[in-house]
Amino acid sequence: ILGSGMIGSAIAFDLSSRHNVTIADINPEALNRVKSKAADIETLEFDVSDKTRLQNTVTDFDLVVCAVPGFLGFESLKTIIESGIDVIDISFSSENVLSLNSSAKSNNVTAIVDCGVAPGLDNLLLGYYDQKLKLTDFECLVGGLPKVKKWPFCYKAPFSPVDVIEEYIRPARYMVNGTMVTKEPLSDCEFVEFEQVGTLESFNTDGLRSILTTMSHIPNLKEKTLRYPGHVEYIQVLKKSGFFDEEPLSLNGQKISPLQFSAKVLTDEWKLDEHEEEFTIMRVTLRGKNGRDQTENIVYELYDEYCRKTNVSSMARTTGYTAAAAANMILDGRFTSKGVFPPELIGPRQECFDYIIGYLEERNVNFSKTVTND
Amino acid sequence: ILGSGMIGSAIAFDLSSRHNVTIADINPEALNRVKSKAADIETLEFDVSDKTRLQNTVTDFDLVVCAVPGFLGFESLKTIIESGIDVIDISFSSENVLSLNSSAKSNNVTAIVDCGVAPGLDNLLLGYYDQKLKLTDFECLVGGLPKVKKWPFCYKAPFSPVDVIEEYIRPARYMVNGTMVTKEPLSDCEFVEFEQVGTLESFNTDGLRSILTTMSHIPNLKEKTLRYPGHVEYIQVLKKSGFFDEEPLSLNGQKISPLQFSAKVLTDEWKLDEHEEEFTIMRVTLRGKNGRDQTENIVYELYDEYCRKTNVSSMARTTGYTAAAAANMILDGRFTSKGVFPPELIGPRQECFDYIIGYLEERNVNFSKTVTND
Repeated sequence: ILGSGMIGSAIAFDLSSRHNVTIADINPEALNRVKSKAADIETLEFDVSDKTRLQNTVTDFDLVVCAVPGFLGFESLKTIIESGIDVIDISFSSENVLSLNSSAKSNNVTAIVDCGVAPGLDNLLLGYYDQKLKLTDFECLVGGLPKVKKWPFCYKAPFSPVDVIEEYIRPARYMVNGTMVTKEPLSDCEFVEFEQVGTLESFNTDGLRSILTTMSHIPNLKEKTLRYPGHVEYIQVLKKSGFFDEEPLSLNGQKISPLQFSAKVLTDEWKLDEHEEEFTIMRVTLRGKNGRDQTENIVYELYDEYCRKTNVSSMARTTGYTAAAAANMILDGRFTSKGVFPPELIGPRQECFDYIIGYLEERNVNFSKTVTND
Repeated sequence: ILGSGMIGSAIAFDLSSRHNVTIADINPEALNRVKSKAADIETLEFDVSDKTRLQNTVTDFDLVVCAVPGFLGFESLKTIIESGIDVIDISFSSENVLSLNSSAKSNNVTAIVDCGVAPGLDNLLLGYYDQKLKLTDFECLVGGLPKVKKWPFCYKAPFSPVDVIEEYIRPARYMVNGTMVTKEPLSDCEFVEFEQVGTLESFNTDGLRSILTTMSHIPNLKEKTLRYPGHVEYIQVLKKSGFFDEEPLSLNGQKISPLQFSAKVLTDEWKLDEHEEEFTIMRVTLRGKNGRDQTENIVYELYDEYCRKTNVSSMARTTGYTAAAAANMILDGRFTSKGVFPPELIGPRQECFDYIIGYLEERNVNFSKTVTND
């Protein structure tokens, strides 16, 4: 496991029940935290951006799970693939990871990418139903939120604030009636009701990623992020007044990027405390015609909470156990194709779909499913 | 005139009709702007923080108007007084300028301080009515606002954003029933109606300054700042999430003060464009008993706009012409007392009060006055 953050360590704990696991990180404290909880997990202090070291290290292993910060993701994935090692990636880098497909094939590598909750499970559902129905619409609403709301942002980030802010400034690409459109991030802000948490607000973010390429035959593809009501208004206050600008400003002779600085200021405010209760909420809506030319509306809802028993956050559970399921699937020889596979390319295989959903259910990560016809 | 900013230059233009005026600034561009509009004003490029240079320079003049940024204000005023030169001060430094009173007396200097619109004209009114009535209540609501509202802050600063932000973080001192109380800045936010501009919000800021000392016999003293509705909520978003913290943060090895950095980011957003229309609004309410034991409620309202004819902003008109009036009052020998005088100590003199109010009326800066009994 590369990356000993909240999610990487949850993956390590999960996989260590069946496998010999080594976890690597640049930060010895993060490694010590893992070691103190699970003595059988080996730790390795190293800098993932050291390409030669990474190459030499990964070749000792059967499979690598890459759970590094987004900015390190693409280069790490590329190096692992070139080293000929199977890999599960949840680093969610901004680069197009599908571009590594031919390298994976020629290096005889299975790489499952974007293998978390979203991107991840929504892609899996889409791939599964794309093969069962003639889909016209796909929509994913997803968010990870703290149970206790603290004004003003009512938000805690399970990863770096910079990565959150980048979601708020990157133009959001959608498919509308078969045409790719680009919308302002944070636009189309509207309220949505959820049984477990009440009213949330949903807004445009650029979350479709590989789906825009692999599922471009579906005319309507949409992804929105969920937050507590009011979040977007306050984010817009910062954004519109220049706090998320990337162009550096000069202050006392120092060049400083407002975005980097704002992320630093927000680090404390958005920090998810170690045992702070949070939840993951996702609603995936699929619409399409079945074999009898009936329109089916299929809604999957996921609501998952911080686990008080294991002290594992919901974001780590939903993202990490999906990645762990995929890792076991490869290690057990259930998925042997070579290339780069986002989960929508795995979903069509019934046995893989069932395996991942079943793996999550065993860990009490459950979907509800509703089907209606119209 | 020390300081060639918006207000300093307006004072220079006004005084140059009767006097030989020299304006000094560290910034040659600011000086050139003055020179291009009024060739008879002498300019002098120099750094006010150079104490020896300041001492040597001011002794060539009959009177100095100090219109420098707040952080330079106290030291500049101190040096001018020690140099034995009469001075009008509108730098609004955070230090207690009354502490320079004995120095002013021993140096045979007349120093009129806080001599703008607020502090300034409200102090003058208070001093005037303190001598006419047995006052129980004084309240000043004041703000300078752009005519065109731009989301999110709907605000433009005629001075440095740092000075504005400092008003939002400095505890607000009031007198309540004869006791000094300290309130959270930005607290007690409530709507107030004005005929000329509709609804504004008023909130606590630490604006009473010298009045808390000189008028401590009045049981209720209150000052609130006016902004367009919504401003405080968005300021609180920044404040509560750490953007106004003074303690430096580390970013890429650089130590940066969030407050300084936020002020820098907001510089563009809050910048009052050269010909942007703005207005000053102030409501001073005085309540007290007259000689016949009747309670009088006296309300002075000032509404003043950017002048399209002279291209002088309202903030420069109301602040600058008050300072210019005080300067002329000294130069004409109408006020010869020695010491440090905030305007509430000048207001009791009918001829000085009339002179300043008349000077402003000549420049079309007008108060409306309402008196009711109850």
